[in-house]
Amino acid sequence: MTNTPTHYDVIVIGAGPAGYTAALRCAQLGLKTACIDNWLDKDGQSGLGGFFLNAGCLASLALLESAKIYHTLTHDLKTHGISAQAITLDVPQMIQRKDDIIQALRLNLAEAFAYHHIDRYPAKGKLLNNRQVEATFVGDSNRSPVILEGKHIILATSSSPVKLRCAPIDNEFIMDSVAALSLTCVPKKLAIIGAGVVGLELAAIWSRLGAEVILLDAQEKFLSILDEQIAAEAYQIYSTQGLDIRMGARVTATKKDHKKVNIDYQDQDGTHTLRVDKLIVASGKAPNTENIADSNADLLLDENGYVHVNANCRTNLPNVYAIGDLSLLGPMLAHKGIEEGVFVAEQIAGTHPPIDYGILPSVIYTDPEIAWVGQTEQALHAMGKAIKVSVIPLKTNARAQATGKTDGLVKIIAHADTDALLGVHIIGAHASELITEAVLAMGFSASSEDLASTIHAHPALSEALHEAALGLKNKSMYAVLSK
Amino acid sequence: MTNTPTHYDVIVIGAGPAGYTAALRCAQLGLKTACIDNWLDKDGQSGLGGFFLNAGCLASLALLESAKIYHTLTHDLKTHGISAQAITLDVPQMIQRKDDIIQALRLNLAEAFAYHHIDRYPAKGKLLNNRQVEATFVGDSNRSPVILEGKHIILATSSSPVKLRCAPIDNEFIMDSVAALSLTCVPKKLAIIGAGVVGLELAAIWSRLGAEVILLDAQEKFLSILDEQIAAEAYQIYSTQGLDIRMGARVTATKKDHKKVNIDYQDQDGTHTLRVDKLIVASGKAPNTENIADSNADLLLDENGYVHVNANCRTNLPNVYAIGDLSLLGPMLAHKGIEEGVFVAEQIAGTHPPIDYGILPSVIYTDPEIAWVGQTEQALHAMGKAIKVSVIPLKTNARAQATGKTDGLVKIIAHADTDALLGVHIIGAHASELITEAVLAMGFSASSEDLASTIHAHPALSEALHEAALGLKNKSMYAVLSK
Repeated sequence: MTNTPTHYDVIVIGAGPAGYTAALRCAQLGLKTACIDNWLDKDGQSGLGGFFLNAGCLASLALLESAKIYHTLTHDLKTHGISAQAITLDVPQMIQRKDDIIQALRLNLAEAFAYHHIDRYPAKGKLLNNRQVEATFVGDSNRSPVILEGKHIILATSSSPVKLRCAPIDNEFIMDSVAALSLTCVPKKLAIIGAGVVGLELAAIWSRLGAEVILLDAQEKFLSILDEQIAAEAYQIYSTQGLDIRMGARVTATKKDHKKVNIDYQDQDGTHTLRVDKLIVASGKAPNTENIADSNADLLLDENGYVHVNANCRTNLPNVYAIGDLSLLGPMLAHKGIEEGVFVAEQIAGTHPPIDYGILPSVIYTDPEIAWVGQTEQALHAMGKAIKVSVIPLKTNARAQATGKTDGLVKIIAHADTDALLGVHIIGAHASELITEAVLAMGFSASSEDLASTIHAHPALSEALHEAALGLKNKSMYAVLSK
Repeated sequence: MTNTPTHYDVIVIGAGPAGYTAALRCAQLGLKTACIDNWLDKDGQSGLGGFFLNAGCLASLALLESAKIYHTLTHDLKTHGISAQAITLDVPQMIQRKDDIIQALRLNLAEAFAYHHIDRYPAKGKLLNNRQVEATFVGDSNRSPVILEGKHIILATSSSPVKLRCAPIDNEFIMDSVAALSLTCVPKKLAIIGAGVVGLELAAIWSRLGAEVILLDAQEKFLSILDEQIAAEAYQIYSTQGLDIRMGARVTATKKDHKKVNIDYQDQDGTHTLRVDKLIVASGKAPNTENIADSNADLLLDENGYVHVNANCRTNLPNVYAIGDLSLLGPMLAHKGIEEGVFVAEQIAGTHPPIDYGILPSVIYTDPEIAWVGQTEQALHAMGKAIKVSVIPLKTNARAQATGKTDGLVKIIAHADTDALLGVHIIGAHASELITEAVLAMGFSASSEDLASTIHAHPALSEALHEAALGLKNKSMYAVLSK
């Protein structure tokens, strides 16, 4: 690298799922590509994968796997005829396994980048204008910033946890969701501000490892993005698992006191104080757009910091795109960003059919998982659609029984007249895998009859989708058991 | 019940998956239905579900779940930072859990039967002619046989393990696959005759519980029903797990000797004797057609005992059908029988589109699982089809890494010119669930492009199918890691 501008066909800022996918696909399509990313791990090492891989959902999933094993050991052995004594937990080793997995996945990405000759800049990127990006190196303060020139620039700087004034992060007693994935011991009593996706994923881990977990959320409605029936089922399952979920609980102040945290919050009953060992702040994420562009670049953001884009992920500046969590097109999900990364790369190289955000699956990686695609029953009623609904509890499913994973249900909503699939909602083991069938079906504008006439392996959890589809025609064998 | 013939619209003989599905769908369609089944459990209690539920794949899966937990405890804790001492195994309790699950599923079926007013006969059914069935009660020798009359008769008596003259079952040292699911302790050294689906499913259980397992199979080719690449991968994974698979090993004699079994077998190197604690015979299954019909009924069977049927599952006798393992239409799989049960019930009540056996998924419930739909690469080459093939190892998949389930691969075969999906083959965790997407896609005559353009949740194992589909267009991000 030199101090004279280096020219690229495409410069991608950010190497999370949206950014690395965009860079890889651009390079595959023959475009000379650079990728600027400022992630540094705790050792000051740069690494691909962004927040998602290094400190988000993927890291969380790796820990959850360990936590599930620990929970099985401490709670579920007896029925299997297994016993064990002196079960101990080495949290730093558990965290190390998670870090090793992240490291392996980062190396995979690095290998793919190298193979496709993508130039990596461990730097913070700043858009100077629609052709130039300034890269200020991180981790090496002696290195001077460089200016890169690109025919196309893709912004993919992802999002970060929102900070709360009432609960300033010290990462010792009050942590953000990143630090919450690297605790060195299990807190006895743990509070989480925010009972949304991230809060629940963290609760799933630490509660299984033995923490008493209390979630405080200012909203009145639990998981309001979900179909209400699924949200109610989720609330019931999580509560039975031991989570103490307090909705309508607005935190007003936090105070450290003798190695504990006192949390003041208000709900409809008045004012309360909760005393816990650790507090995690997980109240949403905001796009990383601070200093993303020089003010002279005139990049248009909205009042919440999201980049303004049209349906083709194009910003107000010619040849500058924004993808992933930076825009309000679709939800903040890794695979949304991945799809947009492909979409923009292929737009630059030629064409790509538009993304149908209506059939983008959403997933919450708790245990059981929640996954859905299409509309909720409530949204369809609000639109005045004539619908039919079928629900199959997983306890009627033979595979669920055999594996002891009977919590949850599958709900299918179809148009009352045309039978077109309008929404599929799953809470249960492996929901993130089961939803794929529904996404594919909706991509084909399938009817529920199409799902009903597809042969599903027996025994399999996917049979619950089949039964739910049959249920719409009163042909479910297990309808009687579902009442 | 009386001694004068009772009249039904439909009489179903057999209450395994094919039979119970046929009975339930007939009853749902308003047909007066009887179901005759002779299953008795070890307490002499009759129960629905047939061999499959009570002593086959489902029972095996329930035990495998326990075995996987035990294996994790004894082998995989360290990486997770968990330790445990004094791990013990209470095999009778493990078997009891399996029996409890079976019992619960039987009760589900019984409830569905009662709800749909299906008359149950705990009896052995014998076809007298195309209108009459004799039911000889089991479990109650005082009860006289009855004659039932039916406008339609569905034969669904399933199949049983093949007996070998060289290894007579005593269920103490030499067991069939049924007894192998109810052992009271873990044999130190266990041999299994037959390295097919059932033998491998049993091996998966007992090897995880600590047995040294040797599989002997007379065939030269391992899992010859599979795509060769998947079979080779399976052989490698199973061997690494500790299974000792000896192909081309023809057992000539077995002899009990001081609470051990000596097994004589021949292979290309000569004659060998293997001394083990227990021997399981798992060398295939044969249709249960002995005494299925009075000789005067003139029901046509083939030389191997399969009932002769046409493409509509109709036997040579008017209004008599045979479904499930009784016929050679499609493989011996529960969901094949289920689909035929629906097919015949709906034929009787009106119409049903024909079954496309070409898109019937097959599953082997080992760990990892194997599942496939469509043709193998070898079969397509033999047909002279122009094909393209893409393979993605699961070790490149982020979800597989996070959960430590990196064994296996996904293979997609499409037509070289039309891009139509011709075969999808998976070995890996949850293959039985992942295959559903491929089945649905092939039902829609989809191209690999359709899979490639479907948004898959990230992270999910199903992304491996997506990557494999992308690979056919050289668009896989992880192709470099797959080499």
